[in-house]
Amino acid sequence: MTDDDAAVVVAPNATLTEGDVGLVRPRDFISKEPFTFDSGAEIPEFTLRYETYGQLNAARSNAIFICHALSGDHHCAGRHSPDDRKPGWWDNIIGPGKPFDTREYFVICANCLGGCRGSTGPASINPRTARRYNLDFPVVTIRDIVRAHARLVKHLGVDSLAAVVGGSMGGMMAMQWAIDFPQDVRSIMVMAATARQSAQAIAFNAVGRSAIMQDPAWNKGDYEPDKGPNVGLAVARMMAHITYLSNKSLDSKFGRTKREPAGDAPGHFDVEFEVESYLQHQGQSFVNRFDANTYMYFTKALDRFDLHGPDEKLEDAFKAITARALIVGFTSDWLFPTEQSQEIAQAMLRAGRRATFAEVTSDLGHDSFLLNSPDLYALLRAFLQAGKV
Amino acid sequence: MTDDDAAVVVAPNATLTEGDVGLVRPRDFISKEPFTFDSGAEIPEFTLRYETYGQLNAARSNAIFICHALSGDHHCAGRHSPDDRKPGWWDNIIGPGKPFDTREYFVICANCLGGCRGSTGPASINPRTARRYNLDFPVVTIRDIVRAHARLVKHLGVDSLAAVVGGSMGGMMAMQWAIDFPQDVRSIMVMAATARQSAQAIAFNAVGRSAIMQDPAWNKGDYEPDKGPNVGLAVARMMAHITYLSNKSLDSKFGRTKREPAGDAPGHFDVEFEVESYLQHQGQSFVNRFDANTYMYFTKALDRFDLHGPDEKLEDAFKAITARALIVGFTSDWLFPTEQSQEIAQAMLRAGRRATFAEVTSDLGHDSFLLNSPDLYALLRAFLQAGKV
Repeated sequence: MTDDDAAVVVAPNATLTEGDVGLVRPRDFISKEPFTFDSGAEIPEFTLRYETYGQLNAARSNAIFICHALSGDHHCAGRHSPDDRKPGWWDNIIGPGKPFDTREYFVICANCLGGCRGSTGPASINPRTARRYNLDFPVVTIRDIVRAHARLVKHLGVDSLAAVVGGSMGGMMAMQWAIDFPQDVRSIMVMAATARQSAQAIAFNAVGRSAIMQDPAWNKGDYEPDKGPNVGLAVARMMAHITYLSNKSLDSKFGRTKREPAGDAPGHFDVEFEVESYLQHQGQSFVNRFDANTYMYFTKALDRFDLHGPDEKLEDAFKAITARALIVGFTSDWLFPTEQSQEIAQAMLRAGRRATFAEVTSDLGHDSFLLNSPDLYALLRAFLQAGKV
Repeated sequence: MTDDDAAVVVAPNATLTEGDVGLVRPRDFISKEPFTFDSGAEIPEFTLRYETYGQLNAARSNAIFICHALSGDHHCAGRHSPDDRKPGWWDNIIGPGKPFDTREYFVICANCLGGCRGSTGPASINPRTARRYNLDFPVVTIRDIVRAHARLVKHLGVDSLAAVVGGSMGGMMAMQWAIDFPQDVRSIMVMAATARQSAQAIAFNAVGRSAIMQDPAWNKGDYEPDKGPNVGLAVARMMAHITYLSNKSLDSKFGRTKREPAGDAPGHFDVEFEVESYLQHQGQSFVNRFDANTYMYFTKALDRFDLHGPDEKLEDAFKAITARALIVGFTSDWLFPTEQSQEIAQAMLRAGRRATFAEVTSDLGHDSFLLNSPDLYALLRAFLQAGKV
């Protein structure tokens, strides 16, 4: 890395404040070639909404691709307008002087195929019928998502990614990138992920999908976006949100603190504890930004993710990889416990690959990869740096 | 204990098979005295449905009171008819030669006040209005439940209980018995319990209640029993059921095993994994035997349970106790982790009480207290035996 100010490169349209990529603008990549899913189904074209930060260097060698998690999107750094209350979801990691230093790296992030934040998904119009896909949208897999992203990366003129990075579902995608496009990926950083969805994780997703499907407004997936199964989606999100945190973080953040009753005669089952109020807020705000069908498709993609082959030899999946791999687990993550990260790293090592496992101590649960974590930042920074030697 | 067959005592109406209490019949205790809840609200009378196994001895000193958990009831041993597919929920522990040996002990179990399995609860008719209570039923607390049970115990002629025993919510009740009726309880056995509901446990209950309340059939608690919010209740139960098990037990029981598709063209979101099918079955069978309003009231009683006073000195709550206490935690219980059991035992010891903590190694999660566990059986048996010295 360099401290030379002359090396500072910012995204076009960005107003730089120190440590911040500034204002950013999403773009759309429209792929007019048909896309064939793992299932064999095909769509005639698709759009991926994406953002970039920093600038591609002349050698086209400094690109980092960021994979978002289930409820994330392409907007991972900076702000869309000066009034935005919050920056992108990984703004703590991406920017000048940050672990993914935009003075040095060209950072790309795209909403996943099947998504609801600008990329083609179940709520998009099917050009063949001029109606919404809804459940006519093909089942999407982690491999499908990565294959679509790979088209975008080629379109941007990048043949070799310095790194593919992601947490949770994004970590699954990073592994899949290294497996399916071994020549295009020089390193991966996989956080809070698993090589295959556990029975417990499937169970939670199944309950979330049940909550959505049992909402009459779901209507077998056939609804207008503003009339979706908001009730079911909110319940699904509230439950899932608990699994992203930890017992300890909930206790220290909320404990048994109560709210003021709303009136003189509160109902038996009105919100009483702060933690209830917090979850209700999480459910409601999710409904305002997310599509229930995308939630259905993405949780199914997670549940079907399994890199262990029929022979149960995970190392076989990793034999194709050439990328260096940093696998990070968080001590308090009980959704994808650190043993599952260790399992990935050990299988990569058995396959003769360059992998390392790091356990980061954190009380913040599965979502630790999203939150302020100097230990994690130091790891990411050093791992990127080591790749330049 | 004795192997003398002459000492075998069985409940009236029971047909004894070895190790089994045989056929049993529930009874109703109707208390015609008004009952005042912790909230100050009053009901004019109430019924408790209960069962007993074994026989009260002449000294009236051999009674064990069993406290059931959230979804349990009074039927904890034997069968109601020879055709019953399953015996009572704790049949592995209660019976001739079992840890709670009915040749020696008189075992009592009653459905809780607020319940839906024969005891007075929200679905009961309010004698003052001749309509169902529904949400006119007063908020019920663990203390209320215990106070109602205490009336039954007196009615049965028992002034001193050899033991009060329970797991989960039943463990909370056992502690409350020893605190509120110290002269009436000689020992308690508390399993998989907590001195206060954690933020995470409140959070899961809050999501379950949200699922019920958002089901239009809930109708603010005003529904006929056969037209209740079955959809919401099933979702709540499916989610809660995951918290009663463990990651490891789900992995070993189901893993990622798939079901045969129901037809040639399964829907995208049809049940695919065995664990999904299992949870759906759990949800459906629960709806057939449980009332959603009782679920609402009991989860609220759990959430409000907190033996730590305003000074956060748990030992103060235990100063009144005279009973010996066995506190059992299970290694894989993540809903009420063993630290919470240790905290109980240590506070009892700080209060100068006779308490002991035992950690039982089990992969079966919170529900371990219900399942086959020879280590647990040995502890319960020895603890009861030690009380006779």
